[in-house]
Amino acid sequence: MKKIFIDREKDIPIYLQIYSQFKRFIENGSLPPGYKLPTIRSLAKELGVNIITVVSAYRLLEENGYVYTKVGSGTYVCEGLQRDRDLLEDIEISEHKEIHVKKGIINFASSSLNPELFPVDEFAELINRVLRRDRGYAFEYQDSRGYRPLREAIVNFVRLYGIETKIERTQVISGGQQGIDVVSKALINFGDTIIVERPTYSWALASFQSRGADILEVDLKKGGIDLENLEEKLKKFKPKFIYVMPNFHNPTGILYSDETKEKLVELAEKYETYILEDDFAIELSFTGKEVLPLKAFDKYDRVIYLKSFSKVHMPGLRLGFIIAPEKLVSSFLKAKYVTDLTTSGLMQRAFDLYLRENIWEKHIKEIRQVIKERFEAMREGLEKLKSYIIDFEIPEGGFYFWVKLKGDVKAADIYQKCLDKGLLIVPGDMFFGIKKEENFLRLSFASCDVLDIRRGIEILKNVFEEIENDTEVYIPII
Amino acid sequence: MKKIFIDREKDIPIYLQIYSQFKRFIENGSLPPGYKLPTIRSLAKELGVNIITVVSAYRLLEENGYVYTKVGSGTYVCEGLQRDRDLLEDIEISEHKEIHVKKGIINFASSSLNPELFPVDEFAELINRVLRRDRGYAFEYQDSRGYRPLREAIVNFVRLYGIETKIERTQVISGGQQGIDVVSKALINFGDTIIVERPTYSWALASFQSRGADILEVDLKKGGIDLENLEEKLKKFKPKFIYVMPNFHNPTGILYSDETKEKLVELAEKYETYILEDDFAIELSFTGKEVLPLKAFDKYDRVIYLKSFSKVHMPGLRLGFIIAPEKLVSSFLKAKYVTDLTTSGLMQRAFDLYLRENIWEKHIKEIRQVIKERFEAMREGLEKLKSYIIDFEIPEGGFYFWVKLKGDVKAADIYQKCLDKGLLIVPGDMFFGIKKEENFLRLSFASCDVLDIRRGIEILKNVFEEIENDTEVYIPII
Repeated sequence: MKKIFIDREKDIPIYLQIYSQFKRFIENGSLPPGYKLPTIRSLAKELGVNIITVVSAYRLLEENGYVYTKVGSGTYVCEGLQRDRDLLEDIEISEHKEIHVKKGIINFASSSLNPELFPVDEFAELINRVLRRDRGYAFEYQDSRGYRPLREAIVNFVRLYGIETKIERTQVISGGQQGIDVVSKALINFGDTIIVERPTYSWALASFQSRGADILEVDLKKGGIDLENLEEKLKKFKPKFIYVMPNFHNPTGILYSDETKEKLVELAEKYETYILEDDFAIELSFTGKEVLPLKAFDKYDRVIYLKSFSKVHMPGLRLGFIIAPEKLVSSFLKAKYVTDLTTSGLMQRAFDLYLRENIWEKHIKEIRQVIKERFEAMREGLEKLKSYIIDFEIPEGGFYFWVKLKGDVKAADIYQKCLDKGLLIVPGDMFFGIKKEENFLRLSFASCDVLDIRRGIEILKNVFEEIENDTEVYIPII
Repeated sequence: MKKIFIDREKDIPIYLQIYSQFKRFIENGSLPPGYKLPTIRSLAKELGVNIITVVSAYRLLEENGYVYTKVGSGTYVCEGLQRDRDLLEDIEISEHKEIHVKKGIINFASSSLNPELFPVDEFAELINRVLRRDRGYAFEYQDSRGYRPLREAIVNFVRLYGIETKIERTQVISGGQQGIDVVSKALINFGDTIIVERPTYSWALASFQSRGADILEVDLKKGGIDLENLEEKLKKFKPKFIYVMPNFHNPTGILYSDETKEKLVELAEKYETYILEDDFAIELSFTGKEVLPLKAFDKYDRVIYLKSFSKVHMPGLRLGFIIAPEKLVSSFLKAKYVTDLTTSGLMQRAFDLYLRENIWEKHIKEIRQVIKERFEAMREGLEKLKSYIIDFEIPEGGFYFWVKLKGDVKAADIYQKCLDKGLLIVPGDMFFGIKKEENFLRLSFASCDVLDIRRGIEILKNVFEEIENDTEVYIPII
């Protein structure tokens, strides 16, 4: 067996050191599924530690689904937890498939608006104004922190969402995914712990894992993350940060309550960690209720606010921003520099005018209306399917329904059958870190018009009926 | 002391395991400067290894400048080698300073053309054609591998440089730095070895270090990398890849000979590693001699070809591409996806027309002429300074003179004195990994016109004279 190595000078309890190393050996395949761990007594003796210490480590491994105990026999490694040595190897490019969508297919998978809704004319006009005004300077390397007038405009823009900040705290980035990548680069060292919601955005997981982070998942419930379980994990581990999407979460559509937001910030302060708030759809509330980002509750400068403009404006802008806690400003700048030096000056300059002249407001009003109609259409459709085999929550905004399948129907089967009939959906398993659950679907209403949503729901209904019938046929009658 | 840990199952010789761990402890400050290493005998005993093994490890540490031996006393840690636990913390954003250049300052630091030389009108026209033609689709998420017609155009473009490839091997990226970052993400795991030229581009170093790589430097000589020393290191270590800039290298301006290029590819094949070829200026040969990239010599599919369009077209495009060895195509795609999902569709579509309709050719011809004139002006100027205190090689292309200072004059002093007088240069120390040499300057002629180059050389001359005089004044006469 691989050796377990203990460092008594380290600030981390010994049982956690043992836990982390087993976790890694299991994930990298050094300890294969079915492998029997050393007995508690023998490992305690070998490491020169108390038996209780080893018991605690094994219990934690079991709680997190890495091992199971056979009474009277020992502790064994579970199936299906291996990660390749190549940290990215195991990530399926499932969302990537969106891009290869055939013409005519109905797309319940996409997280962005259909291009017909983009404010293209306004943007073409702005780009031309910038080209006339700035000429070659629009194509120079920009300040890596961002084009200063845009950063000014951002400070004013976030004031609308209850965030008071200064230009020095803003960092322009080339879209939300780059924001996650920059924060990861700046903060995650190999072996650090990161806490995420369960389920969560898979490409954030990929980014954290790519830097060798240990991922811990905390369940997401109606109203927000499970604070009790979160606090337990904060106590035990010292995570670098907690990654959350409090506003119309991807994939569940959940909106955190204000109370949960307040308490979450308190926990970050109490346990001296940061929160990375990924905000991609706060503008899209259906209820008229005012929604504030977590950052607006941040009394302690613990929240890293990450805002993408891709989802509600145009993905192709490749533009977003971070509002950084004071202590992290310079490490984000360095990470941004290493990542791609600077974001496109032309896009920054055009978007500056777009914000500054409030062109965005008209666009947001329009698409809020359109998205709400699409949401209603999908809700109506799903209500009709409820009598069949599904359960789901009603989102208050955003793009997604998170649908739980009843019985032992697998999302992967639904996915394939839908695709055969011309409907693209996202099976839910990709939103889980370990122990992937296989009976969820994410259905997005971002990119289909009402008619297509109705057609898509029809397809879904046919598929469910087919599966129901299939099941009957294959049950042997004894 | 920190414990040294040996894994006999590992594929790496034990003396290298010992070496790597000491190296890391020294770099992260666990073993401070002046710290006395355990005696060879005691460490050999503690680890249960042969004395020769420890001797080999200590010798390698000494060869690489980590420790020194006091005869009859022991082995001690050298000064000035510490890297922070935060892997990016130690990287000075020196190049970033370029961006804050005050108006009127003469810029010998910038690696890009002045904006007046950018093909702005041509590009504005192309952008508008794309907007009229593709409307919202230009702002959608693009295929993460790149916009297909652009990838086609790239395959044709590289044929001019002797590279035969296929569309499946091309990966579009948002500029050269992102290319380095994507390759790092795809290939480097914590603790992997990367070989670089000495000196090299500092932000490549930063990217490799940010992923926890161990960096080994191999000297660069006239005609290319020191192949003998490289082979020694390839034999001992198993690097993930070798990072090189064979064409008008940054910062030295060196062009590899064809013979060195051929042999380098052979070495990569022999030792089963990859070469990352960073090609930013192959177009800018002054001699009329045909220059081929390393990739054109790549019989074994061992070269990762990385080409930025920033340096010779417009930095603000944020556009470049990778030609990947077949085995690496999918890992680069995944890394690109994690990094920023996709590169701007608008820019890709405009640049596709720019390549496809050969608009780039006219631009390159023009700037080749302009840069050559600037090169001549700087060469003339430096020849005149030669009688003072400097030595330098004549580049055959690209943007840089790499100037060695005589005596104990420090680049940092020259930098500050020049800045005070309105000239920005780059001190050479940032281009070294460990054991930074302090008597080099990088002088770029990319962004100044001939008149400014002459003025800059005048400033440099004044500074040298001042220092020479200073030195005389401060020498105590005994």
